[in-house]
Amino acid sequence: MSIREHVMKMKEASPAMASLPSEVRNAALRSVQEALSAHREEIFAANREDLKKAEETGISAAVVKRLRFDEHKLADVLAGIDGLIGLEDPVGRVTLRRELDEGLTLVRVTCPIGVIGIIFEARPDALVQISSLCIKSGNCAVLKGGKETASTNTVLFRLILDAVSGILPDHCLLQASAHSEVDELLGCDDCVDLLIPRGSNRFVRYIMDHTRIPVMGHSDGVCHTYIDEDADFEKAIPILLDAKTQYTAACNSTETLLVHRAIAERFLPAAAARLSEAGVRLRGNAEAAALIPQIRKDDIMQEEDFSTEYLDLVLSVRLVGSVEEAAVHINRFGSHHTDAIITENKEHAETFLRLVDSAGVYVNCSTRFADGFRYGFGAEVGISTGKLHARGPVGLDGLVTYKYRLYGSGQIVGDYASGKKQFHFRDLPV
Amino acid sequence: MSIREHVMKMKEASPAMASLPSEVRNAALRSVQEALSAHREEIFAANREDLKKAEETGISAAVVKRLRFDEHKLADVLAGIDGLIGLEDPVGRVTLRRELDEGLTLVRVTCPIGVIGIIFEARPDALVQISSLCIKSGNCAVLKGGKETASTNTVLFRLILDAVSGILPDHCLLQASAHSEVDELLGCDDCVDLLIPRGSNRFVRYIMDHTRIPVMGHSDGVCHTYIDEDADFEKAIPILLDAKTQYTAACNSTETLLVHRAIAERFLPAAAARLSEAGVRLRGNAEAAALIPQIRKDDIMQEEDFSTEYLDLVLSVRLVGSVEEAAVHINRFGSHHTDAIITENKEHAETFLRLVDSAGVYVNCSTRFADGFRYGFGAEVGISTGKLHARGPVGLDGLVTYKYRLYGSGQIVGDYASGKKQFHFRDLPV
Repeated sequence: MSIREHVMKMKEASPAMASLPSEVRNAALRSVQEALSAHREEIFAANREDLKKAEETGISAAVVKRLRFDEHKLADVLAGIDGLIGLEDPVGRVTLRRELDEGLTLVRVTCPIGVIGIIFEARPDALVQISSLCIKSGNCAVLKGGKETASTNTVLFRLILDAVSGILPDHCLLQASAHSEVDELLGCDDCVDLLIPRGSNRFVRYIMDHTRIPVMGHSDGVCHTYIDEDADFEKAIPILLDAKTQYTAACNSTETLLVHRAIAERFLPAAAARLSEAGVRLRGNAEAAALIPQIRKDDIMQEEDFSTEYLDLVLSVRLVGSVEEAAVHINRFGSHHTDAIITENKEHAETFLRLVDSAGVYVNCSTRFADGFRYGFGAEVGISTGKLHARGPVGLDGLVTYKYRLYGSGQIVGDYASGKKQFHFRDLPV
Repeated sequence: MSIREHVMKMKEASPAMASLPSEVRNAALRSVQEALSAHREEIFAANREDLKKAEETGISAAVVKRLRFDEHKLADVLAGIDGLIGLEDPVGRVTLRRELDEGLTLVRVTCPIGVIGIIFEARPDALVQISSLCIKSGNCAVLKGGKETASTNTVLFRLILDAVSGILPDHCLLQASAHSEVDELLGCDDCVDLLIPRGSNRFVRYIMDHTRIPVMGHSDGVCHTYIDEDADFEKAIPILLDAKTQYTAACNSTETLLVHRAIAERFLPAAAARLSEAGVRLRGNAEAAALIPQIRKDDIMQEEDFSTEYLDLVLSVRLVGSVEEAAVHINRFGSHHTDAIITENKEHAETFLRLVDSAGVYVNCSTRFADGFRYGFGAEVGISTGKLHARGPVGLDGLVTYKYRLYGSGQIVGDYASGKKQFHFRDLPV
């Protein structure tokens, strides 16, 4: 069967999948959990194969860490499934109940999106998380993971599929493996409701440019930390270090430091010393470089350089004259992901939160908090830098849509158009 | 200034527009209302010009009715603005408040989307409605109306712009007039957050295929009315007549009648007689045609014909064996807009509501109810047949997104990663 034929069958199965009661979806998750636990040795063996291949191609230690699926990662995903089972059902929630007229009641109720295609990086734990989120939210899913963990993914997917067989409808899950299958998937705009690509900015753009299917992806993470003139340096320096160095490869790491001119001379030398000690290379425009001896001549930045995402121990620095100017810089050069102000001045904080047009706007904490787990969502399927449907870390709420149910008793529009009847719009408890 | 230069300025103005308090946005709406009322003669004169041109090109009476902007239409739009002023502010609503840890509080709050481009049909009242909705929701808007009402639109837009001048930020509204300007707008994916095209299916597809900007449009309206075996014919026939004939050009008119086989022989002759009397031409597959003498030989339909949107006094008819089979037909041939079941059987009704994958799923009432006004939304900017962000009639709720505000007091992720601190996730009242 081609991907298209498979996905057409998935589309046909999706209303049945969407209609399952919560208990059945949770039972499927429990079954997945048991299967992964029971077959751990098989998973680890497949993962060792992937790691061996990866090491032969001379992959970095950081990447190996992501590819590895061991007892520790297994315990994490099993605990994740536990958490997910315990979360409130995102499906079937009534968000509006309104009597339009006597015997004519409108009810808005959440429901699964339908068929979701998710293309993700080489991380076996992501495969388990994503399929669990889709099962919990009643969605059918096509999964395509990074090729570096192909063996692990194949075993994991087979175990998951076997575990849900007989509990969930056939065809509710599908694994794509070849890259050509992704291109085939992009053409399925009549049977796939949403694509979630995770990966590089370039990759997400490629997906957007080659499909009519709505895409919820994050482009990149050019996050800012702005040190206001009323900042408490005791908070500012640890936050900045955490935001830059705690995990540089994450999209929520700070890439640009903005500093208010009034405190730049006091703040920058101390901050630069601590950042340099932590191995951070500093870059900045001429004005910033004049205050930071650690900035080398070839690291003096031009205007357009400020949209760079490093994902590394490198930090851009710029001075600004006000919180408003900081917001203008962030809105222009940032990626609308997550940006923080460090200040003790409540008015400045509120101005920043209002003017900065990003999914996450923070006061006095690290941009690294932008994450579904840290927000208490149980898990995330990705972080959206788009503004529509879901913004920021996307958990179960982002995987559902809604329907309007209208319960009538013979009403016709003609009677309202003619004035024979009138709507009275009365909201009822949901 | 080119459209792009204009829209870049609009993008810069959008954080200020988004930050305005509710009172200011309502004051702007009041000012628009007064200006339109005071300059009515100027508007009507411009509209007479448009009508004269339209009549010269031999346009139909139905279209003339849409183009006309007279005392009656003015009264409607002024009342509409009144209603909008009275509606709760969609901006600044807190939808989640969660303490992640001591002194670290996450708040999800609604905010305007930013810059919205709306391309709509030749209806001067739509220009007023759409700009009012955008003002109320704190969004900047680029408006492009149908060319047949260019003179009326130009006067209306100038009056609106003058009325909000000094109340709202400069550059918050822009009128595009030439078709080439639409193409220019499609390229502005770095400064337009959302496009809402209203018009034909082909037009919406064109927009989707030529832009990276997210599009919220409706493709078409292939709505169904399914007469269940347990239908009350006393309800079914008036509902069917209303759904087909009350306003045939609307996207929520029924295009296909599905009838359960068990009652087809009793229901169809009576229904067909009433529909024929009302001027409806009936089409159907061979099985339906065998029961409906009014179906002419060349109106016998093939499978693929059932996805036709007539927008006219024409109705497709098909027999099905169960509510499940009706849902399969609707999901396959429909446009996921609005579909109704007529039944006295609650179980059948619930099965239909669950299995039919449409924005509106109705029991015992006309599909024509799918409309923002009839849902009590005050007004609508369009009806979305997509599933993401907003589905069905889109009112103010569909014109906002949200931000996550995180209020900290020096927290860093490193402390949680090392286990030194733990999240406690406590939801607070919103």
